[in-house]
Amino acid sequence: MSQPKPSLSKPTPLSGFPELLPAERFVELQVIEQLRTTFELHGFAPIETRAAEPLDQLLRKGEIDKEVYLLRRLQADSEDSGEAGPGADANTLGLHFDLTVPFARYVLENAGKLDFPFRRYQIQKVWRGERPQEGRYREFTQADIDVVAKDALPFHHDVEVARVMAEALSCLSFLPPLRLQINNRKLIEGFYRGLGAPDPAPVMRVIDKIDKVPPAVIATMLVEEAGLDDEQAQLCLRLAEIQAQDTSFVERVQALGVSHELLSEGLAELAAVIDGCASVSTDRLVVEADLRIARGLDYYTGTVFETRMSGYESLGSVCSGGRYDSLASDGRTTYPGVGISLGVTRLLMPLFGRKKLTANRSVPSAVLIALPDEHSRVRCDAIAQELRRRGIATEVAPTPQKFGKQIRFAERRGIPFVWFPAQPELQDDALGAPTGERADEPQDEVKDIRSGEQVPADAATWTPPLEDLRPQILTSGD
Amino acid sequence: MSQPKPSLSKPTPLSGFPELLPAERFVELQVIEQLRTTFELHGFAPIETRAAEPLDQLLRKGEIDKEVYLLRRLQADSEDSGEAGPGADANTLGLHFDLTVPFARYVLENAGKLDFPFRRYQIQKVWRGERPQEGRYREFTQADIDVVAKDALPFHHDVEVARVMAEALSCLSFLPPLRLQINNRKLIEGFYRGLGAPDPAPVMRVIDKIDKVPPAVIATMLVEEAGLDDEQAQLCLRLAEIQAQDTSFVERVQALGVSHELLSEGLAELAAVIDGCASVSTDRLVVEADLRIARGLDYYTGTVFETRMSGYESLGSVCSGGRYDSLASDGRTTYPGVGISLGVTRLLMPLFGRKKLTANRSVPSAVLIALPDEHSRVRCDAIAQELRRRGIATEVAPTPQKFGKQIRFAERRGIPFVWFPAQPELQDDALGAPTGERADEPQDEVKDIRSGEQVPADAATWTPPLEDLRPQILTSGD
Repeated sequence: MSQPKPSLSKPTPLSGFPELLPAERFVELQVIEQLRTTFELHGFAPIETRAAEPLDQLLRKGEIDKEVYLLRRLQADSEDSGEAGPGADANTLGLHFDLTVPFARYVLENAGKLDFPFRRYQIQKVWRGERPQEGRYREFTQADIDVVAKDALPFHHDVEVARVMAEALSCLSFLPPLRLQINNRKLIEGFYRGLGAPDPAPVMRVIDKIDKVPPAVIATMLVEEAGLDDEQAQLCLRLAEIQAQDTSFVERVQALGVSHELLSEGLAELAAVIDGCASVSTDRLVVEADLRIARGLDYYTGTVFETRMSGYESLGSVCSGGRYDSLASDGRTTYPGVGISLGVTRLLMPLFGRKKLTANRSVPSAVLIALPDEHSRVRCDAIAQELRRRGIATEVAPTPQKFGKQIRFAERRGIPFVWFPAQPELQDDALGAPTGERADEPQDEVKDIRSGEQVPADAATWTPPLEDLRPQILTSGD
Repeated sequence: MSQPKPSLSKPTPLSGFPELLPAERFVELQVIEQLRTTFELHGFAPIETRAAEPLDQLLRKGEIDKEVYLLRRLQADSEDSGEAGPGADANTLGLHFDLTVPFARYVLENAGKLDFPFRRYQIQKVWRGERPQEGRYREFTQADIDVVAKDALPFHHDVEVARVMAEALSCLSFLPPLRLQINNRKLIEGFYRGLGAPDPAPVMRVIDKIDKVPPAVIATMLVEEAGLDDEQAQLCLRLAEIQAQDTSFVERVQALGVSHELLSEGLAELAAVIDGCASVSTDRLVVEADLRIARGLDYYTGTVFETRMSGYESLGSVCSGGRYDSLASDGRTTYPGVGISLGVTRLLMPLFGRKKLTANRSVPSAVLIALPDEHSRVRCDAIAQELRRRGIATEVAPTPQKFGKQIRFAERRGIPFVWFPAQPELQDDALGAPTGERADEPQDEVKDIRSGEQVPADAATWTPPLEDLRPQILTSGD
């Protein structure tokens, strides 16, 4: 029978396409499970969209064209050649680079079958062809929540998505402290208009650079690029300095002496979001108004969110979003939405990379059944099956090595318990003296290989401590 | 502020890229959860591989090149142009078309960090550019389990993967009955050699067509294409007719009077797998020896698996796999493996398409908190939060419509319970007479909108029946 061609020498990783070892994947899966649980408790329904979208849909926003991965079939026919010639965009497919564009398309495509307001969560891979660096990947997982409505979406949903994501993040207790920073586009646009800026858009673009550029340079840019005078520029800088974990920011903004209808509206909205999140805010997850946040070129029209991870500020925002007055539109109906997107990979990979985060075992198994000899396999399988029936992940040793070797087999994988099936030989084994009172009838025994404690056990009733049932997340400090 | 360009009219689905409505996605997620649970109970560790592999890796097997989707960055530079010119294959990326090729690469790449034998499961999307039809998609989800070892992999792992997948399938009790059909390449190769076939490979290729071509034609093909005489051809057909849910097939094969060392080995292995699965086999999941199964051009070297879904035979096999003596090799070390791959999308989409399978609600919420007026939102949120704290998915009505409308809101989504916060107005509401004994203090009430039963309730203690906690899978018969 023919065999595959002999494979190459050891393959090397692809830059920008991170992969995890099993222990790390346990952490990622627990994060995803925790996120799902929180989202579902709040009534968010799961959807998943296909990985590919027509190129013309992907390029609707126009700015990120260089990041798209196009698809082409190796033996392409004319129907879907993947060539990006003029007019071919509707037939050319590209991989989605976020979950918002596909969600907007999904809403339009299924509008007749969905009930609005529609709350959804979506946890999926996305792809961007940009230069890889820490915190920037070519393939990565996002976890998005959005609420979308037909025609009008009440403001309280802005509060809701902030609170739900804050609650989800606060459940991820093994992460470094996070700051969920909230602002409002109406507030800043109203402020810029109120102080007489000729156009608020360039002001916002300059202020968006405030984390990378010194204030004096920002002030000059505001004069040169946004047409402000020095005093206006200083007011913009003072606005951007305002941060507060309560609604005290309202008075501080008002004290700057600028007034505009849109500013008042934005202040009231931002105060409502900050108030609404007060009960979720903790030391580990601070929710605060931060009037620097602008979300650059994204088309938000009200609330905007960013999130920084303490000690990992260079990653930029790990969780961002905001309100769109028109998330989608089919010409007749407009669908406003508000949402927030968590960069799961961006959050976790730097922690994995610095060995700050892993799991305490590389297999799900809580128990290894030691195999005395190959003839005992059926009996060992039966013990394992009895434990599994009660939800205890169990594997049987692959070969009947000496028990010492089988214990080391468990140790290497982090399996906490080794189970010794009853047998006469056991009492002569090198494992040491029999433990405790032993009945005449030989009994199974189970050993906690961390403490060395070994006790008689019955597969029908023995249960490990709850914390040993599944792999546990381990963190290491600085 | 600028807005996105007005979007197009209603988008249409992409053929071959199936997407689910939320109720269907609940079903898929429960299937995936159930699979994960079974796999982990048996000690299989989760991994996920990147979606993209170098083209030369994807084409190693040679047969399925036309199905690969190549990736190309829209603004490609020379480093990863995605052009499939000569010698470019190592830099060209394509989407993986199965989970076996990436797993083999992952094993080689991480061999130093993995413990062998390595049991892994992997549930992920894969992509194939083939013509879409029912059961054949361009994007679909596979759930694979494999055990891989260094140098040698004991045979009992063949029994293990069959049993684990059989157990996983038997947990999916809402599926039509399934038949897991098992054969062994050594058995059929030994049989063909034993009866004097000049080359077993063409015999296997012809026998692989047995479901599509009448026996008389197969017999002719065996003579013309595989160089057999009529008697040999008849023996091959008689072998292929043998099916058994126990090890009685051994005697039936022996009765054909062919003998060969490889045949005996194959018979013993197949008997061991069938024996090992006897405890898992039920009416709904039959495990049987089926001596037609050959797995065509795949490079299996022992046990082979296929699975048919009753009433959906035209889908072909929904769950397939087998033993590879060389799953991967880096020239120095060979990694034998045995695995089986379930087509999650292939299993579910035809059932969704024929309205045989869905969930009983489109949202996770078990409870809708009715909103008497906008001022009550804070109080309603507090009730919802109290329920969520105890694991009860809850949403608050988006607008203070009349209660009748709010009940219909819940009904449309399949939310079973509507919660009415205590308030004086409730007693005058059109919902009917107050139920039961009412204390002087107004109390919250909860209504099961299916039965109409409404009872006083306390958010700190009330719990819905277990079956209402999460969306339930609904099946409809023929």
